[in-house]
Amino acid sequence: MTEHPLTTHTQKPLIDPSILRAAKRERPERTPVWFMRQAGRSLPEYREIRGIGSILDVIKDAKLVAEITMQPVRRYGVDAAVLYSDIMVPLLGAGVSVDIVQGKGPQISNPMRTTKDLDLLRPTEIRDAVHYVKDAIEILKSSLEVPLIGFAGAPFTVASYLIEGGPSKSYSKTKALMLEDERMWHGLMERLVEVAFEFLRLQIDAGVDLIQVFDSWVGSLSQRHYLKYVKPYTRELFNALSTYPVPKIHFGVGTGELLADMADMNIDVLGVDWRTSLRDAKQRSRRPLAMQGNLDPAVLEASPKTVLSECIEVIKSSRSCDGYIFNLGHGVPPHIDPAQLERIVRFVHEFGDKIRYEDLDPSVETIWEYLD
Amino acid sequence: MTEHPLTTHTQKPLIDPSILRAAKRERPERTPVWFMRQAGRSLPEYREIRGIGSILDVIKDAKLVAEITMQPVRRYGVDAAVLYSDIMVPLLGAGVSVDIVQGKGPQISNPMRTTKDLDLLRPTEIRDAVHYVKDAIEILKSSLEVPLIGFAGAPFTVASYLIEGGPSKSYSKTKALMLEDERMWHGLMERLVEVAFEFLRLQIDAGVDLIQVFDSWVGSLSQRHYLKYVKPYTRELFNALSTYPVPKIHFGVGTGELLADMADMNIDVLGVDWRTSLRDAKQRSRRPLAMQGNLDPAVLEASPKTVLSECIEVIKSSRSCDGYIFNLGHGVPPHIDPAQLERIVRFVHEFGDKIRYEDLDPSVETIWEYLD
Repeated sequence: MTEHPLTTHTQKPLIDPSILRAAKRERPERTPVWFMRQAGRSLPEYREIRGIGSILDVIKDAKLVAEITMQPVRRYGVDAAVLYSDIMVPLLGAGVSVDIVQGKGPQISNPMRTTKDLDLLRPTEIRDAVHYVKDAIEILKSSLEVPLIGFAGAPFTVASYLIEGGPSKSYSKTKALMLEDERMWHGLMERLVEVAFEFLRLQIDAGVDLIQVFDSWVGSLSQRHYLKYVKPYTRELFNALSTYPVPKIHFGVGTGELLADMADMNIDVLGVDWRTSLRDAKQRSRRPLAMQGNLDPAVLEASPKTVLSECIEVIKSSRSCDGYIFNLGHGVPPHIDPAQLERIVRFVHEFGDKIRYEDLDPSVETIWEYLD
Repeated sequence: MTEHPLTTHTQKPLIDPSILRAAKRERPERTPVWFMRQAGRSLPEYREIRGIGSILDVIKDAKLVAEITMQPVRRYGVDAAVLYSDIMVPLLGAGVSVDIVQGKGPQISNPMRTTKDLDLLRPTEIRDAVHYVKDAIEILKSSLEVPLIGFAGAPFTVASYLIEGGPSKSYSKTKALMLEDERMWHGLMERLVEVAFEFLRLQIDAGVDLIQVFDSWVGSLSQRHYLKYVKPYTRELFNALSTYPVPKIHFGVGTGELLADMADMNIDVLGVDWRTSLRDAKQRSRRPLAMQGNLDPAVLEASPKTVLSECIEVIKSSRSCDGYIFNLGHGVPPHIDPAQLERIVRFVHEFGDKIRYEDLDPSVETIWEYLD
């Protein structure tokens, strides 16, 4: 295992990094790019150092986390690092028994069903319990030359794991509880606002430069249910965070019907999957807001030329956005060829601004020749 | 096994059935209701007669198919029967080797990858090859007292199975082929238009009263890809069907971004999942069109009272629609209690019109007392 040199915690000043400028809707030096799940299972250097334990064992090893977090920055030259962690980590700190099983996702041995179960959730203990997250951030901040993104799961998405006991297709138990047990739902969501807040505060205090709140599965809801049962809590979370000056990104999958409401919070950047065009997302957000996304991760399994053609289209559709951060519309799939992402970064850095600001509409052949 | 009495093929005249009136945007006697996947695995009487063979063996037994198709009509009193079949059936007739594995869905042993594979698809042979579908419809038409719905898979959704080899989460192989091999994609989609057309023509000629075209997985695409690679073919299918006077329903899941385009075809009814409200769907369709849906099937696992509350909301949101057919936003989940669906049918028949046309906004308690 290659360890990074451990230095003391002296933050290097980040001279106006492009991702921070884009998040503030200013024109950056070049179009910034990072990838959700850029660290981890898609990288051979990750598989080499990861070992065989649970991902949760890895996450508790601050030095290892720092190394894994830096791997994609080194390999791809992305404009931000994203802390290698999991949205379920703060729950460990809050007293819930969680495991993360490779290929199966989070597994909760005692899913939450009644208000009694709520006592298991102790958000105030998170800070001390997951000190390794703070340690990893401090290591990272002492050596990273790009901004570091911290993150948390939004109350609905975390609730869905706690209630279903793991990943779900229909979220039927979550929806039944939400619709039927107002007291339990309110209690759970209030606690999960606190869980996310404590986890993010810990990361912000330790030095992350941006945060992203993942409401990955909220697109399974109708707008009516979102408005009544979810939006008030996510909003409360962003309100609580508003005194912290780091840019805030809000993201979910399949959220076309919800974008207007997800934008209607104290956020700086709206993450958009590939179904909704950036143009439409911008229009629905009804206020100045930077956009992030929205390359379909499925196309990463197509040929390099196809991937670049798709990147051109995505960037063209970002022209109407006030600020724009290139990303996929969801996480990096586990089995893709890292060379695809490397090529995207080179492409976005070289041509992103020309397409966005200078109305360049290059053929994929031009780009191909240039990159080759 | 209880067999229905086999009579000769003399169609009983259907006196202005509510579902046909609703599809024509006329006011029916009462709000019509049926459920996608109402026949089959969720019914105990189905499990009793089904036997242990592949679902494809069942589908080839016309008498058994007729019985299975009638079971939900008898049990629930729904306003339409839907032929017990599968969107992969015409492919069997067209020469493709398909199996349907319980719990796993369609499995194609030789997924299509090159233009050479296209020769395997012989749409002109469908009519003779799947004569059992015609036989089942003729039996049904001689005894059913409600309209019979026939169906087919839309080109994209069927293509996704043929290319992936089975169900998929990301549709990455389908998308890669679509984006990279224009000739193959065009050839495949053209043939699948023909496959769907032949399968639907067979059903219409045999006597079905309405048809539904399922583009179940098209919501995995961006609008940009839908417009370029899918819409022209689905449109061609509906154009080819336009000389047949049966009402046509068009449905997909997670299609919020595509509804305007899916409505922009020769169709009568737009199927809407639960994510988009009927109000929004109506607005996006930009022309007179009946709507169908949009109860979230996940709520069927909640309590009966919750289910009825949700039905009230769905019907309220249908007020702006010119015509409306109550349905779920996707198929009936396999493990639900049939009593839930029975209660919905009684509720929709009793209160649907009062809510839609007389602005009744009943409490769930009123309804509960009435139904109990």
